[in-house]
Amino acid sequence: MAYVTCDISVSADGFAAGPGQTLERPFGDGEVEQLHRWMFETRDENADEVAAITAVDAFIMGRNMFSPGRGDWDLAWRGWWGDDPPYHKPVFVLTHHERADLPMQGGTTFSFVTGGVEEAFERARAAVSTRGGKPNATPGSGDGLISIAGGASTVNQFLAAGLIDELRLHIAPVTLGAGERVFDGVPGRRLEQVSARAASLVTHVTYRGLR
Amino acid sequence: MAYVTCDISVSADGFAAGPGQTLERPFGDGEVEQLHRWMFETRDENADEVAAITAVDAFIMGRNMFSPGRGDWDLAWRGWWGDDPPYHKPVFVLTHHERADLPMQGGTTFSFVTGGVEEAFERARAAVSTRGGKPNATPGSGDGLISIAGGASTVNQFLAAGLIDELRLHIAPVTLGAGERVFDGVPGRRLEQVSARAASLVTHVTYRGLR
Repeated sequence: MAYVTCDISVSADGFAAGPGQTLERPFGDGEVEQLHRWMFETRDENADEVAAITAVDAFIMGRNMFSPGRGDWDLAWRGWWGDDPPYHKPVFVLTHHERADLPMQGGTTFSFVTGGVEEAFERARAAVSTRGGKPNATPGSGDGLISIAGGASTVNQFLAAGLIDELRLHIAPVTLGAGERVFDGVPGRRLEQVSARAASLVTHVTYRGLR
Repeated sequence: MAYVTCDISVSADGFAAGPGQTLERPFGDGEVEQLHRWMFETRDENADEVAAITAVDAFIMGRNMFSPGRGDWDLAWRGWWGDDPPYHKPVFVLTHHERADLPMQGGTTFSFVTGGVEEAFERARAAVSTRGGKPNATPGSGDGLISIAGGASTVNQFLAAGLIDELRLHIAPVTLGAGERVFDGVPGRRLEQVSARAASLVTHVTYRGLR
């Protein structure tokens, strides 16, 4: 059984992005650059947390994380990350619009899934269980790791479907006041706080018990 | 100048209470007892944080924290805490309905303020600056400490008014899915993360820069 993780940076008031996302401002309006300062300005201090984000066998993301466009595809758009995206693994993109697989340099292949979170999960699970016997070590499992890469809407769909094993919130010292909330529409439940750690520009908290 | 602190326990999705608050369930519906387990079940582990909550010279709270009633006062109601409430200091209760001061055993006096957060703040500030030369030590100040004791609606009014110097969120491992949110209606801004500490049943995070 695959083990599903999710890393997401949030403001102290629970937003993963501000309102008004555009090509120029993919995280929207407000002090959104504060959300990710910890990753860029204090990378050494947070080396373990940064490494864990990409130490997985496949990713799932929402279309809005892959592209600023909506509706039919602009096939010239190949993601925000250049020719060699930092994923180096299969990436399944949730969308309502079909598109052929998009292999990139460095091992990243974007595949476009029109069947919703369940289909994306099944395709990612198949990918991590057939990737040649060297999946990442996973708690309680010999199978691969799948990361739900964002954004908030996609994370919330997976949380509501009970498909995330481990949620790692990276709480940044900023409030946004509006935008896309993590947990929006997700029913309440008891969680298990697995770990928490403070760094200069962030507080990391890991929860299980979300299924 | 008085120094204003605020301690509030919140769920991982940002709620300080569930929906449907009643006399029997003052924190409303859902797994709300999870919010405060850290204070009761792991008090020794959190001794410093618990001590800081009450180490102040005056408190301000909303009516809904003092009483389950609404509208005109039932004068027989003297708070949730018995004859000797745990405050031992002046407590200013925000309300739309006038009521005479209510002195209790042990040094607590409830005073009822009908002029909103600004009047409550002024009265608390006057109280802590005239309490006889032994105010608590405060960062950058020789004056007293005022605690905004809750609930979320009152905390949010003080946050929006820029009257809180130090917000201490106690983030409990639970989601509520609905209820009263901390930061609701409070404009976004950059904060300073002063400290953060993980314990078994809670993650403590202290912010400044809220004014």
